[in-house]
Amino acid sequence: MPEIRKDPVFGRWVIIASERGLRPNEFRPGAGPDGKSYVCPFCPGNEDLTPPTIYSLPGAAGSWRLRVVRNKYPALTAESAAGNRRDGIYDSMDGMGFHEVVIETPEHDRVLESMPAESVADVVRTFVLRMREIKKDPRIKYVMIFKNHGRNAGASLLHPHSQIIAMPMAPLRVLQEIEGAAEYHLERGTCVFCDIVKEEQAFKRRVVAENADFLAVTPYASRFSFETWILPKAHNSHFEDLPGEQAQPLAEIVKTVLSKLSASLPDLSYNLIVHTMPPQDPAAGHYHWHIEIMPKLTHVAGFEWGTGFYINTVSPEDAADMLNSGKRYKV
Amino acid sequence: MPEIRKDPVFGRWVIIASERGLRPNEFRPGAGPDGKSYVCPFCPGNEDLTPPTIYSLPGAAGSWRLRVVRNKYPALTAESAAGNRRDGIYDSMDGMGFHEVVIETPEHDRVLESMPAESVADVVRTFVLRMREIKKDPRIKYVMIFKNHGRNAGASLLHPHSQIIAMPMAPLRVLQEIEGAAEYHLERGTCVFCDIVKEEQAFKRRVVAENADFLAVTPYASRFSFETWILPKAHNSHFEDLPGEQAQPLAEIVKTVLSKLSASLPDLSYNLIVHTMPPQDPAAGHYHWHIEIMPKLTHVAGFEWGTGFYINTVSPEDAADMLNSGKRYKV
Repeated sequence: MPEIRKDPVFGRWVIIASERGLRPNEFRPGAGPDGKSYVCPFCPGNEDLTPPTIYSLPGAAGSWRLRVVRNKYPALTAESAAGNRRDGIYDSMDGMGFHEVVIETPEHDRVLESMPAESVADVVRTFVLRMREIKKDPRIKYVMIFKNHGRNAGASLLHPHSQIIAMPMAPLRVLQEIEGAAEYHLERGTCVFCDIVKEEQAFKRRVVAENADFLAVTPYASRFSFETWILPKAHNSHFEDLPGEQAQPLAEIVKTVLSKLSASLPDLSYNLIVHTMPPQDPAAGHYHWHIEIMPKLTHVAGFEWGTGFYINTVSPEDAADMLNSGKRYKV
Repeated sequence: MPEIRKDPVFGRWVIIASERGLRPNEFRPGAGPDGKSYVCPFCPGNEDLTPPTIYSLPGAAGSWRLRVVRNKYPALTAESAAGNRRDGIYDSMDGMGFHEVVIETPEHDRVLESMPAESVADVVRTFVLRMREIKKDPRIKYVMIFKNHGRNAGASLLHPHSQIIAMPMAPLRVLQEIEGAAEYHLERGTCVFCDIVKEEQAFKRRVVAENADFLAVTPYASRFSFETWILPKAHNSHFEDLPGEQAQPLAEIVKTVLSKLSASLPDLSYNLIVHTMPPQDPAAGHYHWHIEIMPKLTHVAGFEWGTGFYINTVSPEDAADMLNSGKRYKV
C-alpha cells in the first residue's frame, strides 16, 4: 500500500510507492522492444495484460482508438482511507487516490506529434472527461495530468500514453504557484498569466506557436533549456472547464510545439504537465491553467534536481529562435 | 554576461548563462577520456588550461594536492553590478557572483570515497575557508557548495571536483526551507533538524552511518530513492562556522556514505549539496546546516523534474537496509 509522507521542514508531501518499483521497463537492457520476450501491454490484442478498461473510444471494426485503464503499478490506490497519522515528529497518510493511464493510440511506434490532430483532440477531451468524473470524489484534492516521453524523461514504456494521478492533497508547488499568482493579482489587479500572454504577444521573440485560442512561448525565466509553455488566451482557472470547441486548437498547438521540439532536439525526451487549480476550488480570477513542457537533454540535467536552484545555458530567446528556424541543437 | 531572471509567478530566480553551454563535456561521445584529443584541464601539468589558482594546498615536491580555480565557464561573474532591471512585467539583474571549482585531488581517476580521509578533510576545510573569504563581499547573499558526480548527475568532467557558486540572492527553495524550519521552531520551540537527529537515533532503521559528531540518514520523506542526509549532531546554522576538529569526522562520514551508496548502486551518479544559512545572516536557533546527497538512478528520474511532486519507489527504510547490508539495487 502506497504511503504519503510529509517532510517536516517543508510540509512537502512525497509518495512512497514501493510496488511501483516492480513495473516493467521497456528501456531496460534486454527488456526493450528488441528483446524477443517483450510484449507491449498497451498494444491491441494484449488488453488482458492491463487492468480492465475504464473508458475507451471506438476505432474501426470493433477495435479501440484510445483506452483509459487503471495503472497496474499505481502510485496511489482507491482502497485506502487517507486518514492522517502521526509518528513522532512525522506525519503521513495512506496513499489514497487514483492512477490511470491514457493509451493514446493503438499504434505502438507513433509519437504524439505525428498523430492526426483529431486523435490528439481525443486525448485532450479524454483528459477533460476523466477529470470531471474523478473530481466527483470529494476526497480528491488535486488531479495531475502528465506525460513522460522518452527514456530520459522517466518513461518506462514506449507505446504512447499519458497518466492521470488523483490525490488527497495538492502538491506544495501547486499551492505555491497559485499563491504567487494570487499575490500578483492582489498587487496589480490582473492575472499574471493573462499578462504573460499580452507581454509575449507584444515582444514576439519568445513565441513558438500561436492560434486563435492558444499561445506557446519559451517562458522569460525558463528553468530548463527549451522549456515551453502553452497558455490559453482566454482566462480560465480550471482545465476541466475547457470549452468543447477548444479541444481541437489545443491539440493542434501541442502537435506544433512537439514537432518543433523534436526537429531541434534529436531523440526528444520530455515531461508535459497540465497545471490547473485544485478541482474542488471555485473558478478563480488570479489563476490560469496552462501546460508546461520540459524537454530533457541528455547529460545536461544538473544539480537543480531537487534544489530549486536553476542554471539554464540556453536563453529562452535563443531557444525560440532555434525552434522557429528548425535548427538542430547540439548537446 | 550571465543574467538572473525572476519568474513573475513564483518569484523564483533562474540564471541564464549561455556561455556555460560552450564548456567541454568529457561524457560527450568522442570527447571522453578515450578520445585521443582529450586533455583533462584539472590534471597536473595542465594548469594553464584553467584560470589562475585562487587557493591551493601543497603536495609532495612542489606539486599541489588540491587547487581552487575560477570556473572557466562561470554561471555568474564578478564584473557585473547586480542592479535590478525591470522589463514590462519581468525583473532581472546582472549575473553578479563568483563561480569556483575545487579540484579535489591531482588523481584523475579517483573518486571521493576512495580518497584518504585526510584528503577529504582538506576538501571540507577548503569549502569552509573559501566560504569565509567569499562572504566578506557584502553583495553576496548566498553561497552554494555542491558536487555533481557522474554523467547522470550532470557532471561534465570526470576528474574529481566540486563547485562553489556565490550569488547576489538566496534561492527561493533555500528561503522556503529556512521559513519551514522557522515555523516549526515557533510552534514547538525546538530546531526541526535537532529533532530529526534525535528521532532517527531512536528509530535506528533509517540510519546509514554515525560518528561522534555526525549522523547520516535516509530521510523520512525521501524524494528520491537512496537520498541521504548528513546532519551535524550539534546545532549550528552556518556551515562556515564548522569547528576545526569536525572537518575530519565530516570527511569520514562522507566517505562512509558514498562508499555504501556506490556498493549498492552500480555506476553511482549523485548530487551532493551543502544546505546552510545565508552567510550574511546571524546565527539562528531554528536552522541547522546539513548535507543532502541525491543519487541519480538511470531511467528512474520522472516528472518530478521541476514539478515539486515526488514519487519514490524505494522507501527510506528499505534504502537504509540495502545500504547497510551492502546489497546491490537492481535498477
